[in-house]
Amino acid sequence: MPLSIVRWTVISRKAHTWRLEFFALLLYNRRITMFSVMHRILTRTRLLNRGSSVPGLCKCKLTSSAEHTQISREVAKLLEIKASIGSDDLGHQKYTLKTPKGTRDYSPEQMALRMGALDKIIAVFKKHGAETIDTPVFELKEVLTGKYGEDSKLIYDLKDQGGEILSLRYDLTVPLARYLAMNKVSSIKRYHIAKVYRRDNPSITRGRYREFYQCDFDIAGTFDPMIPDAECVRVVVEILESLDIGQFVVKLNHRRLLDGIFEACGVSSGCFRTACSSIDKLDKSPWEEVRKEMIEEKGLSVEATDHIGEYVRLNGHSELIEKLLTDEKLSKSKAAQEGLDAIKLLLQYCDIFGLTDKISFDLSLARGLDYYTGVIFEAVLKCDGVVKNEESSVGSIAGGGRYDNLVGMFDSKNKQVPCVGVSIGVERIFSVIEAKLASKDMKVRTTEVEVFVASAQKNFLEHRMRICKDLWDADIKAEQSYKKNPKMLTQLQHCEDNGIPLAVVLGESEMQKGLVKLRDIATRQEIEVPLDQMVQAVKNKLKELNDHASLPNGQA
Amino acid sequence: MPLSIVRWTVISRKAHTWRLEFFALLLYNRRITMFSVMHRILTRTRLLNRGSSVPGLCKCKLTSSAEHTQISREVAKLLEIKASIGSDDLGHQKYTLKTPKGTRDYSPEQMALRMGALDKIIAVFKKHGAETIDTPVFELKEVLTGKYGEDSKLIYDLKDQGGEILSLRYDLTVPLARYLAMNKVSSIKRYHIAKVYRRDNPSITRGRYREFYQCDFDIAGTFDPMIPDAECVRVVVEILESLDIGQFVVKLNHRRLLDGIFEACGVSSGCFRTACSSIDKLDKSPWEEVRKEMIEEKGLSVEATDHIGEYVRLNGHSELIEKLLTDEKLSKSKAAQEGLDAIKLLLQYCDIFGLTDKISFDLSLARGLDYYTGVIFEAVLKCDGVVKNEESSVGSIAGGGRYDNLVGMFDSKNKQVPCVGVSIGVERIFSVIEAKLASKDMKVRTTEVEVFVASAQKNFLEHRMRICKDLWDADIKAEQSYKKNPKMLTQLQHCEDNGIPLAVVLGESEMQKGLVKLRDIATRQEIEVPLDQMVQAVKNKLKELNDHASLPNGQA
Repeated sequence: MPLSIVRWTVISRKAHTWRLEFFALLLYNRRITMFSVMHRILTRTRLLNRGSSVPGLCKCKLTSSAEHTQISREVAKLLEIKASIGSDDLGHQKYTLKTPKGTRDYSPEQMALRMGALDKIIAVFKKHGAETIDTPVFELKEVLTGKYGEDSKLIYDLKDQGGEILSLRYDLTVPLARYLAMNKVSSIKRYHIAKVYRRDNPSITRGRYREFYQCDFDIAGTFDPMIPDAECVRVVVEILESLDIGQFVVKLNHRRLLDGIFEACGVSSGCFRTACSSIDKLDKSPWEEVRKEMIEEKGLSVEATDHIGEYVRLNGHSELIEKLLTDEKLSKSKAAQEGLDAIKLLLQYCDIFGLTDKISFDLSLARGLDYYTGVIFEAVLKCDGVVKNEESSVGSIAGGGRYDNLVGMFDSKNKQVPCVGVSIGVERIFSVIEAKLASKDMKVRTTEVEVFVASAQKNFLEHRMRICKDLWDADIKAEQSYKKNPKMLTQLQHCEDNGIPLAVVLGESEMQKGLVKLRDIATRQEIEVPLDQMVQAVKNKLKELNDHASLPNGQA
Repeated sequence: MPLSIVRWTVISRKAHTWRLEFFALLLYNRRITMFSVMHRILTRTRLLNRGSSVPGLCKCKLTSSAEHTQISREVAKLLEIKASIGSDDLGHQKYTLKTPKGTRDYSPEQMALRMGALDKIIAVFKKHGAETIDTPVFELKEVLTGKYGEDSKLIYDLKDQGGEILSLRYDLTVPLARYLAMNKVSSIKRYHIAKVYRRDNPSITRGRYREFYQCDFDIAGTFDPMIPDAECVRVVVEILESLDIGQFVVKLNHRRLLDGIFEACGVSSGCFRTACSSIDKLDKSPWEEVRKEMIEEKGLSVEATDHIGEYVRLNGHSELIEKLLTDEKLSKSKAAQEGLDAIKLLLQYCDIFGLTDKISFDLSLARGLDYYTGVIFEAVLKCDGVVKNEESSVGSIAGGGRYDNLVGMFDSKNKQVPCVGVSIGVERIFSVIEAKLASKDMKVRTTEVEVFVASAQKNFLEHRMRICKDLWDADIKAEQSYKKNPKMLTQLQHCEDNGIPLAVVLGESEMQKGLVKLRDIATRQEIEVPLDQMVQAVKNKLKELNDHASLPNGQA
């Protein structure tokens, strides 16, 4: 291999990042293996300015014969991989028939259940006067850069096929902020239900996917304190009640109060966020573990940590506010006082909205995201639906808070649009509903067909088609077999399997008399009606069935 | 700049492709500028095996001092670009605030209009007993490979970040076929409304975007001839009628008949598809142009082309079938006879379904896609909504056909699942509705708020909140200002601007008497009602307004 490098100059920030990127390029595109080779040589010989945090120049020199041998070995290895890939077109290769890792198809049953739940959620959004918008599934990569901290590594990038560098959206909040800034919208109340993408380690058993629905409700605009915030809490409560998925509680807290607690306990302001991220783990870990992390990993003092511990284990209602407002340590912190005043007002508004028994002022609530600036909230389902003294939650099913500075990040003049919003954890809600149905061995209807048009004997296809036409013309949901001469039993079985309540049955003898039979699938009762009164008879019968027991729908 | 290369070995297929890729990398990520440098040097000095179509090794040597100067110049240029980009984190860089090329946000107005139209379309799908499924927005690249012919270049690929090679879906038909084969589903009637992605040259004026909605209805399964096919035509007609967007016609043809015509006119079977793609242009180009293309570009004989021309300019109904069935040339072609028999049956079923005046058997209809195997259809809007002798269509708004071999391409044993389906051109339909509304200067309501809770004087916030709670508890769509003391005029203006029909107005004097005012926004009439009868009074008033003139909704 006639290959050698005398000198090479690189501009690098993190050698480690390079390695990952170029290894990926190697696997993907056979034509650029040479860069991988070179790069691996550079990293292996440790000549790169590895881990340097300042972008700059570093020099490296590869000349020894040992390095030449190394190069040849690498090239040989790569050529071997290339050969094993084969030189045929990719299109003719065999591959496993599957959806991409961490994604799934939604079957008609799953979709019926999802659509049923989403309809209820949307009804609540509409009751509160929300509009809806939509944004592209991908954004310019820069729009997402610097918004998700460490999680940025989970962003899906699109291949550069010439043109702009794009990434799939990671949530619906950043696209909303971009939308508001770009279109100079200073006030909106909108919901947005769409899929988002995270290249996380999928866990099917825990219901964590790489493609999943988010369902957000946000109120943007400059308003008076806590009025839209309280409505967000009301929206969450209405949604969870309408879905009927068990007892829940909405925990409330305030970022300013948390800051104030840290301040009062002697934590330096530079450590507020990292302390916050430890507190955030209290819903999954006991205080002892969190305490250990704060002291050993975050470097907080034992004294400060134990003081914080006394606060963050508190929860209650307005009586707790009053107690904390007179707390000696907290009364010295402006941030704590502001947070407490804000929560006090929120609890007061929530009380007017009839939410007092659904909410809990909980000082352990911290929320992971950096961008929250005010109130934060999170709804959790209570275990087996029973209210317990000890909160034994089965997990967060909605969460949100106030973020007043995000939109400004997109505005060239840093013009702020204050926002508060909530994201409904619809994927978890879907799982809960699915589990509930499974436990009751209930079936979901996937269609809304009201009438099946069946024939008892052969050669009735065209008659069936005429009946279907009449039913469709009358806006009745109807179907028939696509077979010319289906078996009677098969047709009735189809009705039972699919929860179709009614069948119009055509038979030789009835047709001669100008009659058809109307069959109630559940009771198997049949009545004869004249062909020209069929539509009205079907309507009457459907109304009767509807009045007696409400028609099975997508959810029950 | 201490930079030089003595020798370098590259494995390349197409030098041209390299250049584009690495130029893009340069723009994207400052850390890999060195590869751009090197690559540009290689291509500029033309030492790469440019245009070579066989992958292999080629050697290049860069040693002259002229080349060293060139290298230094390139590096200087790149460093200049780098400096102009700035050395801050990417997150703080300035960039144009926009959506990716060829995509757009949907505003609340656009969404309200779209949702209104989609609701009508879905209602028709449900009337015909369709279920819905969903598939991931991306697929394994191999799933899409070899399905779209030349258009494959328009597929969006995801960046290889380790793991599988993925592409964004290009339509909903191939994912359906993959779903059926993967899950061994042999029969389904499903609709799917979702966005698809094509890296086409966007044309905003012509409404062509890179991200757009598709809306598909397909019937899969082994059934008797033309029964599901006829229902697809019925579904298209019902949808277009319910959307009320003007006069239209559904053109019908059959791939076997087209094959038969080509055969009868002496075209060799290897040229059927390419001849078909010429015929497909007849909706946009006059016969003379298509004729020229067939002779000059496709290499068909003048005689064959002119014979074909006689056929493909025909259209009509069943009388045309009868004429063609006795046509001397066509009677010798088995394919033509099969096609004619099939169309005859379809027209017969369409007649039963009451569609005769909406359809036209049109021999010029060819459809672009390769995978159709039987009936094909396409709905076109007629110019200014008037039926004309000369069909002057303003473009296709729905299209589809039978594709019996696509699912088999995904099955390891090549097991076929015959399918027929139609794709509703919802984006065009949205444009037509938007244009219609604009021409009538009509406004779209973006919310469904029924009652606005207003206050005439200051300090009524908590009272307003209580009223809102009562209305929400009664499932009435209500909202209020998020300001503590909003101006009366602003509140009423909000109602007028947003089409809110009713306001509950709180005033000092009424409150003292335990009364509130109910204001009809349109007529400005006010009535006083006792606070404890407010909810019922609102319900009555809403019903009254609803009965008098139907409430404005998302579409009117």
